Amino acid sequence: MVDYTVIGRDGRAKRGVLRTVHGEIQTPVFMNVGTAAAIKGAVSTMDLKDVKTQVQLSNTYHLHVRPGDEVVRKLGGLSRFMVWDKPIVTDSGGFQVFSLAELRKIKEEGVWFRSHVDGRKIFMGPEESMRIQSHLASTIAMAFDECPPYPSTRKYMEDSVARTTRWLARCQVELGRLNGEEGTLNNRQMLFGINQGGVFEDIRVEHAKRIAEMGLDGYALGGLAVGESHGEMYRILEETIPHLPQDKPVYLMGVGTPANILEAVERGVDFFDCVYPTRNGRHGHAYTNQGTRNLLNARYESDSEPIEVGCGCPTCRHYSRAYVRHLLKAKEMLGYRMVVLHNLYYYNTMMEEVRDAIEAGRYKEYKAMKLDVG
Amino acid sequence: MVDYTVIGRDGRAKRGVLRTVHGEIQTPVFMNVGTAAAIKGAVSTMDLKDVKTQVQLSNTYHLHVRPGDEVVRKLGGLSRFMVWDKPIVTDSGGFQVFSLAELRKIKEEGVWFRSHVDGRKIFMGPEESMRIQSHLASTIAMAFDECPPYPSTRKYMEDSVARTTRWLARCQVELGRLNGEEGTLNNRQMLFGINQGGVFEDIRVEHAKRIAEMGLDGYALGGLAVGESHGEMYRILEETIPHLPQDKPVYLMGVGTPANILEAVERGVDFFDCVYPTRNGRHGHAYTNQGTRNLLNARYESDSEPIEVGCGCPTCRHYSRAYVRHLLKAKEMLGYRMVVLHNLYYYNTMMEEVRDAIEAGRYKEYKAMKLDVG
Repeated sequence: MVDYTVIGRDGRAKRGVLRTVHGEIQTPVFMNVGTAAAIKGAVSTMDLKDVKTQVQLSNTYHLHVRPGDEVVRKLGGLSRFMVWDKPIVTDSGGFQVFSLAELRKIKEEGVWFRSHVDGRKIFMGPEESMRIQSHLASTIAMAFDECPPYPSTRKYMEDSVARTTRWLARCQVELGRLNGEEGTLNNRQMLFGINQGGVFEDIRVEHAKRIAEMGLDGYALGGLAVGESHGEMYRILEETIPHLPQDKPVYLMGVGTPANILEAVERGVDFFDCVYPTRNGRHGHAYTNQGTRNLLNARYESDSEPIEVGCGCPTCRHYSRAYVRHLLKAKEMLGYRMVVLHNLYYYNTMMEEVRDAIEAGRYKEYKAMKLDVG
Repeated sequence: MVDYTVIGRDGRAKRGVLRTVHGEIQTPVFMNVGTAAAIKGAVSTMDLKDVKTQVQLSNTYHLHVRPGDEVVRKLGGLSRFMVWDKPIVTDSGGFQVFSLAELRKIKEEGVWFRSHVDGRKIFMGPEESMRIQSHLASTIAMAFDECPPYPSTRKYMEDSVARTTRWLARCQVELGRLNGEEGTLNNRQMLFGINQGGVFEDIRVEHAKRIAEMGLDGYALGGLAVGESHGEMYRILEETIPHLPQDKPVYLMGVGTPANILEAVERGVDFFDCVYPTRNGRHGHAYTNQGTRNLLNARYESDSEPIEVGCGCPTCRHYSRAYVRHLLKAKEMLGYRMVVLHNLYYYNTMMEEVRDAIEAGRYKEYKAMKLDVG
């Protein structure tokens, strides 16, 4: 049984604690993305401790292709491979199979596709995804689902969601079997199911009800932030989340901007992940409480202030906007690293503030204040 | 007067201390190269403290082109710009003007060339180089010299060295003037002259004698490791160094492999710099006491040992060869950073051992042992 406690509520916003075999996760939480077992921008797991990271998210598809999940298993799983003793979530590979891989062919058993690295033909279905994630030995495994393109027709979506439900049942059986096997690195690995249905409210709600009955450890909303408007996404969250179990964590996959996160927390989301802080960091975009700064801007050329005055991140504690700008202009890796560290610290600090605000029952005020400055 | 003390000798090998306005330098020393005010491989000045760096070396030409020496001056000089409170040496720009710049034209006043960044026409001569270095406010400025190509004819070399001598006199006058000016950031900036002459022993010796009379703070050998054999380089060191002042530090520019350094220390060299630990690190080549490891090699795929067993560097303290190899294969910046940190630590630790061995009067044994394992 999943050990998740809601310790505070403010409207639909929840302040929770998820206890795992790798320690506690205070929610709402933003997970820091290390797709290929590494955070982009030369950030190590030692660095993550300096930017308040609670959970690291890696990717099943990428790690299966390279270095191979058998290699990671042999080395003691992702925790030991990356030297990260806190929780790790592994994405199931579904999203990447549908977005990165070439020549994919979806069948009832799973998906045939070609590796984006070497063109090798690979098959992945629910069982394969669970086996890989069991080898990676993450804290939380994500179910293998289809992430349908946006927009999709109602017919396509209905068929896809029905298959995703059948796949989820197979994931649950397979992970149960793997957790019961001797030699499994983490036999308390949790499984989160994924709700799909695009922007069709009724399909989302029907699917949410269906998977809620399956007694999973947590529930994610997938297939959002794939092209629909923010308004549509918020509407889907509002309509769907009430139909997911209230005593289980809710994860909104691949979201998003600080504003997206604040809106989603208000609608009951606990877990987030997004590449924005790392990807935007590498392009010189820094998140601050005075809005986003483009550090490549000429106005920072001789600016001796840190990226954000008063910020406690490893970059702002020492270095100036002028120095970071110079590094970015000179395409020095150090510049990318510095902005990424700042951005991760910004996101993780915002989540700390979010948790405090929910506990204090002043989430609406906090959100309004934060959106106002952003 | 330069404050340099030889506190021990073993044959021609010297163990010295150079006291500077930015603290002491224990010699022999390897300077860590941060060409554009950043160490390649996402390594910051905070990281340098973890890898035993004593001196950081930046480049006048690169910083003049970007961000501009006026910008650095406005921000308090390189020490404050990079946040590095230990000594900094600035290369004069001569080497880069002759190796990187396009369409250069050498005249008695200096060199006209085009920037490798934007093609802008730039003039640099002895006075310009000194002014830029004074703006950068490094601990030690290097004289502006011509670095003649290898091979050069005797006639070309004679003319070039004669001009380099005239340029050196102009550097000395200009830096003296700048150090006497109000508003100069570091008015105790030192000047090292550069000996040239290629592999022509007699030109080298003549030039060494000539510049030795000029009472500079230190002396460098330039124009070596540019294509001649190691044997030729060692011969030039043996013949030339005795003609440089014995009470001043000697710097062999741009050298080299661990073996090169060990041989040069034995011939009386105090200062070194080289891009090998950073450049080779980014290609996955790690220096160890068991020889150089190519971490891309398949044998490291599942290897849970650190790059070097027992190494105290920030990488080896935590991460395995298998993880570093994976990062390098996946072209994650983190992999480059990890090997660069290891390599800098290796070089700086070797210099520590070199200093201890000279003090203990067992330099020959140390060198033989180190070369044997390399």
